Parts: sequence; structure tokens; C-alpha cells
Amino acid sequence: MRSVSIIGVGLTKFGEHWETSFRELIAEAAGKAIADAKVEGKDVQAIFGGCMASGRLIGQEHIGALIADQLGMTPVPSTRLEAACASGGVALRAGIMAVASGTYDVVAVGGVEKMTEVSTEEAATALGGAGDQEWELFNGATFPALYALMARRHMLEYGTTEEQLAACAVKNHANAANNEYAQFHREITVEDVMDSGYIATPLKLLDCSPLTDGAATVILCSSDKAKKFCEAPVEIISSVQASDSLALSQRSTLTAMRATQEAAKLAYAQAKITPKDVDFAEVHDCFTIAEVLAIEDLGFFPKGKGGKAAQDGETALNAKVSINTSGGLKGKGHPVGATGVAQAVEATLQLQQRAGKRQVSNAELGLTHNVGGSGATCTIHVYKRL
Amino acid sequence: MRSVSIIGVGLTKFGEHWETSFRELIAEAAGKAIADAKVEGKDVQAIFGGCMASGRLIGQEHIGALIADQLGMTPVPSTRLEAACASGGVALRAGIMAVASGTYDVVAVGGVEKMTEVSTEEAATALGGAGDQEWELFNGATFPALYALMARRHMLEYGTTEEQLAACAVKNHANAANNEYAQFHREITVEDVMDSGYIATPLKLLDCSPLTDGAATVILCSSDKAKKFCEAPVEIISSVQASDSLALSQRSTLTAMRATQEAAKLAYAQAKITPKDVDFAEVHDCFTIAEVLAIEDLGFFPKGKGGKAAQDGETALNAKVSINTSGGLKGKGHPVGATGVAQAVEATLQLQQRAGKRQVSNAELGLTHNVGGSGATCTIHVYKRL
Repeated sequence: MRSVSIIGVGLTKFGEHWETSFRELIAEAAGKAIADAKVEGKDVQAIFGGCMASGRLIGQEHIGALIADQLGMTPVPSTRLEAACASGGVALRAGIMAVASGTYDVVAVGGVEKMTEVSTEEAATALGGAGDQEWELFNGATFPALYALMARRHMLEYGTTEEQLAACAVKNHANAANNEYAQFHREITVEDVMDSGYIATPLKLLDCSPLTDGAATVILCSSDKAKKFCEAPVEIISSVQASDSLALSQRSTLTAMRATQEAAKLAYAQAKITPKDVDFAEVHDCFTIAEVLAIEDLGFFPKGKGGKAAQDGETALNAKVSINTSGGLKGKGHPVGATGVAQAVEATLQLQQRAGKRQVSNAELGLTHNVGGSGATCTIHVYKRL
Repeated sequence: MRSVSIIGVGLTKFGEHWETSFRELIAEAAGKAIADAKVEGKDVQAIFGGCMASGRLIGQEHIGALIADQLGMTPVPSTRLEAACASGGVALRAGIMAVASGTYDVVAVGGVEKMTEVSTEEAATALGGAGDQEWELFNGATFPALYALMARRHMLEYGTTEEQLAACAVKNHANAANNEYAQFHREITVEDVMDSGYIATPLKLLDCSPLTDGAATVILCSSDKAKKFCEAPVEIISSVQASDSLALSQRSTLTAMRATQEAAKLAYAQAKITPKDVDFAEVHDCFTIAEVLAIEDLGFFPKGKGGKAAQDGETALNAKVSINTSGGLKGKGHPVGATGVAQAVEATLQLQQRAGKRQVSNAELGLTHNVGGSGATCTIHVYKRL
């Protein structure tokens, strides 16, 4: 199996793009990544795109072909992958396998979502399709409700507090303030979060990631050819994925994500590292409780101690482990199909020392963690300089 | 790159499954394939599933995780792929690359669609998302209209007649009558087609494939290990894909599908064969004109002669080339996400001499051709006995 590296990255600004179409978002991110990789369009032999819910959000399926069409790259093969909010992560894995198999040398992996063309209610219903439609959404359980159940149980079992959850949002907004691509550039305080109004108790507005439009692209190349294009390629030393039941009711616990735990075991074994070796990680903080679960399930902190770690500043930039330097889903924004790819963009920028004011000192090993739904899919990737 | 073979197949009956859920269709097809492959569930290391429009048809996304969940196979990685009506074909390619890369030895590739839980109008709108939403569907061009444009132009340029188109449907219904899994078991005549009422002139009801519920599964294994499980594995000697513009208006011709032509070139080169070597092919006959275009673009007949070839019986069972022995999309039915995988099932049954009354004599080399939308995605696979 061939080693695979990232040789270029591109992002749109994340936010509400009222005057930019789905197609234009794709073109912007892909154009930037192709330029960054110093390849030409014709060097790209295949495209893999993550997108969750374009059918319900913009009335369009067949997103793979649309991407090739929009980029003027037909007849290059172009394929959409979907795993709810982990659509970007599974697209990245597909691109990696395509290069690792020797089928292609250079491929583009994109992620995109345009979430603001429908009402908030319609978007919430579309996102609800990431959980179990029959057992959860049909009965009114949209995503804030599902994560609120996890938060309540974590508070009960481990004494986690609302202020500790709030600390994740505060830290992620602080990081986002230093990320030009982030949706939010406003720093917030724990008091702001506590005063922001309940969405699904105990989660408040500022515990929740926003609805976002945006796109992200990375260009992958077999590692043996990567330095032909790029001075500082970033090697992907682990790419893993695990699944769990769609419905929360089918799980043995609400205070851990089994898919994350299984994937983390595989990832650390494949990369031959331990959690202590990780300098920075982009984790899936669709809600603040999700970040707490992630940093525990990934082994950065013991189970039950994630909230306290956040409150104590151990996940801040250049603390014990730098979590969500990009601002995470909370601060950078969460265009669901793009998120997994955008995480890979941040890992690349950090390892190439291009992260500006949010640069992790001596960043040598990074990890990205992308979750679909309430935890039924998890992908993990581990990165280092080639 | 490792060679990959099919070691087991499973299908549900195709048709209107009013009392069987999406999840149950998956379980039935997958269960049969696992039994057929003589593997155990725990031998399957990853799942790839094709599904086009579950968001709009059943309110559910995140189909990869749902499949693993339903099969009791969590935490195995499970991923959905979408390329409109070629979703099954791209899922098959993803499974092949995953095994070819050495990431996994044994994987399941499934396809599924449940199309009868919404009204015909809602289904037509969901399917319209396979074309260009902004330039076609928004203006009322659903799929019968798009293929009618292609048919009209083919009639104008090459003198193809409605009776010639009808011959494709007649032949496919005849084949379907011998396929226990087919939606239709009723043979029809050219007169039946001609009398069946225009849907979009010149296409009539019996020129169109139906709305169908169904699922299909194949189990893939690296060829070097395939004989451990299966006496007669079927090797996939080519797996290719090409793209074209989503909108018909952006293409240089309406009487050929560029994606099919490009993919065919690649497939024949990869398999080191010519069209003459192909004994049988499952081609994408969502409308009768699509079968005519396919048998021309695949090189079985010269451009413009496909209609006459059908009328002259050259595509019948055991004629010059046996086309759509399963009954094709027209006779077997077209659960869009399942179709590409169901084609691979038919190729396997033919090469293993398990096709009963529709068995192709001396079937040694088979091809499957799966199209997304009006031709913006095409996958081709070529098969022979290992």
C-alpha cells in the first residue's frame, strides 16, 4: 500500500454566502487548492467529494459529476461520498485508498455544503436525517436534543458543569478570531455562553455550532511523487473509520462514542503513536459536549475529565494538547459536508507552519476527528511532515 | 494493485415492497450475499453502499452507518456513495479500490433504494436531482423529457424509429420473464409499447423503466484469497469511471454519451479486450433510447445502428451480444442506488452458469455499464472467471 500525502489545500471563507452558489463555493476552494499544490487541473486524475444533504438543501444530487462539470474537468471520474457530518472524512479516506491502491497518483478531495438556502427548520430536518429517522427525528429529536441527552448524562455521571462545556466554546471562538476563514471572529466569555438561552437543556445557543456555507479541498499525491509538486508535503500516516448504531437508544452508553474509541485504537496502532504524541487535534465539536466526549474518547484526557480539562485551559493553543486551533465547528463554522476536509486543511497549515497567530509551536504530529450524526460514523486521520 | 474478485451475490426481489422497509431490503440482500460467499459476517471488514436519494425518498441520510447498524456489523466502517443512478457502480469501484489498495481483504458492496414511499411526482422530483437542478429540473425537465430529447435527435440524425426503440423493451421483458428477481414477468409486444401512451414524445410508458424498491449486494475478496471461500470466483478485470456535464445543454452531442465512450475506451484498454470479446452486457436502459445509445457507445454496433440491431434481434439472448439478460432496468426494475450492484450480480450469475433459462451459452466475458442522470457519470466493469 502506497503512502499518501497532501500537497495543496484550499478553503472558502466559512459563513453565510447569500450571493455565492454551491457551484461557486466548490470552484473557489478547488481553485485555491490546485494553485497551492502547484499542479495543473489536468494533473488531477480523479475527484472525491463529501456532501451530506444537497438533495434536501438545494434540490441537487449527483454532486460528483457536478464538481467535475463546474471545474471544467470532465471526463475525470468524480464521486460523492456521504456519511452525514463525516462526509468530508469518508471522502478523504476514499481519495487516500484510490491513491494507495495505485489507481491514481494525484486526486482532489473536496467537501461542500450550502445550508442557508432553506429555512432553519428545513435545515434542522435535513440534518436530522443523520440520526435515526424512524426512532429519533420522526419523534421530534433533532440534533441539539440528541446531544443534550449526552450532555445531561455526562453531567450526571461525572459532575461536568455547564460552565465547563461553555469553556470549549470560549476557547474555540478565541482560536477562530485568528482564522481568516472562520465564520465568527468575535471572542466570547463563559458568561456570554451561560446567558445565550437554552436550545435543548443544558445546551445553549453558544454551545451549538452554526449553520454554515462553505467548501474545502485538499490535493493528494502518492508520497513518492509529492516532492515534485510541493516543498513540504504532509503525509497521512493513518486513515481509519468506525461505525455505531444510528439511534442513541441502541448504545450501551451515552457518555462515550464507541465509534471514536474504536477508530482511535486503530489510528494509534496504524500510526504507531500514543495520544501523548499528538501536538494538536481538530475534533468534531458540533456541540460543546461533543468536544468533551472527543478529547476523552481520543485518550487525551481520562473519561469524565474532559470538561475540567477544557475549563483549566489544557486544550488551549500550545497548552497540553492544542484542540481546534482553527476555531473548530463552533467558531470556524460547520458546513457539514466540508468539515472533515477543512480539518485536513488546518492540519496541513499547522504542519507547514502557515497557521499565523494560531500556529502551534513545534507542531509535528496532528490528528483530525470527524463524526457523523450523533456518533454513528467516525473517521480519524493522523498527519506529519513527509 | 491487487486483483479483486466477487465471491458471493445477493438480491431482493425487485418491485413495489409496500410491507418491507429500507432496512429490511438491505438485510435480505446482504444476508443472501454473505451466505452465498460462505463467509461469516465477521469476515467482512468494510461496507460500501450505493444509494441515490434516501434523503428525499425516506427522510434518511447517513446510509453507510445505517447499513452496518441494521446488519449488526458495527463498528465495521461503512460508507455511502452517490452518483445518481450510477450510485451502485461507484460503490462497487470504491469497494474494489479498498481491496486493491490492501486496506481490506473482504468487503461488502451494496446498493439500495426505496422509491415507493412517496408519490410518483415526489419521486420524479427527487430523481430530477440527478440532472442539473438549476437549468433542467427547475424548468420542468424531468428525466423522461431529457431522454426524449436524446431520442428525437437520434431519430432525426439516424432514422431510428419508435418501433426500434420498442424492440429494446420487448426483448428486456422477455429476459425478465426468466428472472425470478425481476419486477415484471409479463412479456410484451412492439404493439403493446406503441399503444402504451406518450410520457414525453417519442417515449411512451413502456419505453420507461419503472419506480422500484430493491437491494443488491456483492462480496468482494482479493483474488489471491478468493478460492478459500468460493469455488468459482468472478474476477473484475476492469473498473473505470468517467464524467460529463450535468446539463444536456452543455454537451456537444445528444446522440452519444461522452462519459460512456470515454469509460469504454479505458475499460477495453484495462481489460485488454475489444467489444467483440464481450459475450454479454448489462447496460443502463433507464429508457429504451438509453439502451440504443449504450450499445453504440460501447462499440457493439456502429453509431446510428443500435436501433436497427435491436429490431433485428442482434441483442437478444445468445445473439451477436446478449444485452440485459437480467431484464435490464426496464424489465427487472430500477431501484436507482441498487442498479449498478444488481448488474454485477447478473454478471456473476452468468459467469458461474447460474442464470437458469436466461443463461448465455459459453459466457466467458461480461460487462456492466451503469449511468448516472442523463449521462454525467458512467462506470464500466468487466468480468471473467478467476
